[in-house]
Amino acid sequence: MRKHNFNSGPSILPQEVLEQAADAIKNFNGINLSLLEIGHRSKWFVDVMEEARNLVKELMQLNENFEVLFLHGGATTQFMQIPLNLLNNHETAAYCDNGIWGSKAINEASVFGNVNIVASSKEKNYTYINKNFDIPTNSKYLHLTSNNTVEGTQWHQFPTTSVPLIADMSSDIFSRKIDFKSFSLMYAGAQKNMGAAGVSLVVVNKNILGKNSRKIPAIMDYQNHINANSLLNTPPVFAIYVALLTLRWIKKEGGLAAMEKRAEEKSSLLYNTIDNFPIYTTYVEKADRSKMNAVFFIEDENLQNKFLEECNNNSMIGVKGYRTVGGIRVSMYNALPYESVAAISQLMTNFAIKHG
Amino acid sequence: MRKHNFNSGPSILPQEVLEQAADAIKNFNGINLSLLEIGHRSKWFVDVMEEARNLVKELMQLNENFEVLFLHGGATTQFMQIPLNLLNNHETAAYCDNGIWGSKAINEASVFGNVNIVASSKEKNYTYINKNFDIPTNSKYLHLTSNNTVEGTQWHQFPTTSVPLIADMSSDIFSRKIDFKSFSLMYAGAQKNMGAAGVSLVVVNKNILGKNSRKIPAIMDYQNHINANSLLNTPPVFAIYVALLTLRWIKKEGGLAAMEKRAEEKSSLLYNTIDNFPIYTTYVEKADRSKMNAVFFIEDENLQNKFLEECNNNSMIGVKGYRTVGGIRVSMYNALPYESVAAISQLMTNFAIKHG
Repeated sequence: MRKHNFNSGPSILPQEVLEQAADAIKNFNGINLSLLEIGHRSKWFVDVMEEARNLVKELMQLNENFEVLFLHGGATTQFMQIPLNLLNNHETAAYCDNGIWGSKAINEASVFGNVNIVASSKEKNYTYINKNFDIPTNSKYLHLTSNNTVEGTQWHQFPTTSVPLIADMSSDIFSRKIDFKSFSLMYAGAQKNMGAAGVSLVVVNKNILGKNSRKIPAIMDYQNHINANSLLNTPPVFAIYVALLTLRWIKKEGGLAAMEKRAEEKSSLLYNTIDNFPIYTTYVEKADRSKMNAVFFIEDENLQNKFLEECNNNSMIGVKGYRTVGGIRVSMYNALPYESVAAISQLMTNFAIKHG
Repeated sequence: MRKHNFNSGPSILPQEVLEQAADAIKNFNGINLSLLEIGHRSKWFVDVMEEARNLVKELMQLNENFEVLFLHGGATTQFMQIPLNLLNNHETAAYCDNGIWGSKAINEASVFGNVNIVASSKEKNYTYINKNFDIPTNSKYLHLTSNNTVEGTQWHQFPTTSVPLIADMSSDIFSRKIDFKSFSLMYAGAQKNMGAAGVSLVVVNKNILGKNSRKIPAIMDYQNHINANSLLNTPPVFAIYVALLTLRWIKKEGGLAAMEKRAEEKSSLLYNTIDNFPIYTTYVEKADRSKMNAVFFIEDENLQNKFLEECNNNSMIGVKGYRTVGGIRVSMYNALPYESVAAISQLMTNFAIKHG
């Protein structure tokens, strides 16, 4: 029996993606070679890379200003690669401080230039998203985290600004239709909505590149990767292939509109259950609730542990909150079936009736 | 029928490793979850990481001064990460310039400090390894490439020096017994002798760390990765698991002594065939021939193309030389069976008799 997998990442993938990935390891496309044994410059793999890059552009409805790269390193590497490429020492970049990952991005950026924290919800433990804040027009760019995996908040409306907008979309990419063209750079580790750990997607508007005077190591220069069609060095072949399989699955299932509808249905069910029973508390501002990660608590710690144990006994995994936050976290990425949310909602209901 | 896979990397892996990797994608260790769906901080994956790190130390016979890391990014990322961590702006590092990859490492290091090229075989197209050169004792470290994949040369005796020795061992790691303790830092992309593309092994003597005054992005700081037991951020889970399976296979097959014996047998057979027939030319200095990658030519280009075509017709892949070098390259990594080398040697013999 398959488990209900509420992991926050690495997380659940579509069953057919897993099966296709396993098949490719034994015999890729019937060529009597494993996917792991083929050269990355073979037509076999170049085709994989091109299809994946094109699917991203198609799903995001991007024009020719945008380049799609699949790079080594997690999103954490992008925390440094972005300012390294875009922020000169004497310049200032604007950052939104709305969660643990955004704050890590701020720390890395401060190695390369000045950081202006234009919005922060730190004083309320990152339980909301700032609205109506000032973004100085001389900021080199504005950086935000579109969904805060740990804290369970999500930007539902993005700031309007004349400065280039950069977003870490690791935990909600491809889960909704947004105006991707309004961003200058978007990035995401693959291991939540887009595949397996080991590769990051970087989508960049070429117009923001080439304006930095710093010497950049060749392997960190976005322009080099663009020039090499994302094959500058040996790429993480397997993780890119799993991303391709996942992108194909998203398209086949109806694209971002379908993913958005599912996220809406799943998260509504879960938040309704939370709201229905006072035993469950959530500190997240209602308007800023994440449709990917619901974070809540049972104030009585013994009871909370009992709840986590019941989840475990019912084949529900990944429900424990992040180590710095505690509590309960239910992650509902694209590949999580509605049935899994229905199952945990039922368990929550039963638990609340019994212990509430 | 399995092909004879002479790819230079990504390259052949043991059949049992491929089967185990495919199984783990469907159901990891019988836990009813895919390897791709488990958290990297779960006991399941922490155990994978620890076993892999311990196996590296065991195979290399390293003491407690050494730390083993599995990091994002290929060896190319190490070209920058090494000087970023170890070379202050005003300091000088010694580099050996013996091939295309070493020269890329030199370019990256020059972003961070001074580079002193203490040895170069560039004037003879990198067809030999320098001997008896000076290494100034005030060099921060000496960097070399233990095996030059593209040019087909290999260090069979390493320089004796008082400065920390650093080696890119991407294409011959775990293929022979050497005194690994005499190196201060060793690194290797996994996709040749150690697994699938998407992870790099870094083995570092802790004593060389902590001496740099530069501000280092957190994700690039070796010490941070050591402190986090190589789990600083979400690691490339699948590639690390394939590395573990490959390390287990190496140990089971008899460890580095067995790998060395096989490399000796395979490369002897191939080089004997080359030497036996004047139709095959190699420019590599005999003493410096690589036991991993044999590079040779058929001077008549039409005949060479015919040879490559015959290989192709006989299910032998990856035999074409690197794009900047041309000619023929036969890579003979750990997982390549002796039978494959016997098969291509037979083809070479027949071809030479017919066309020589």
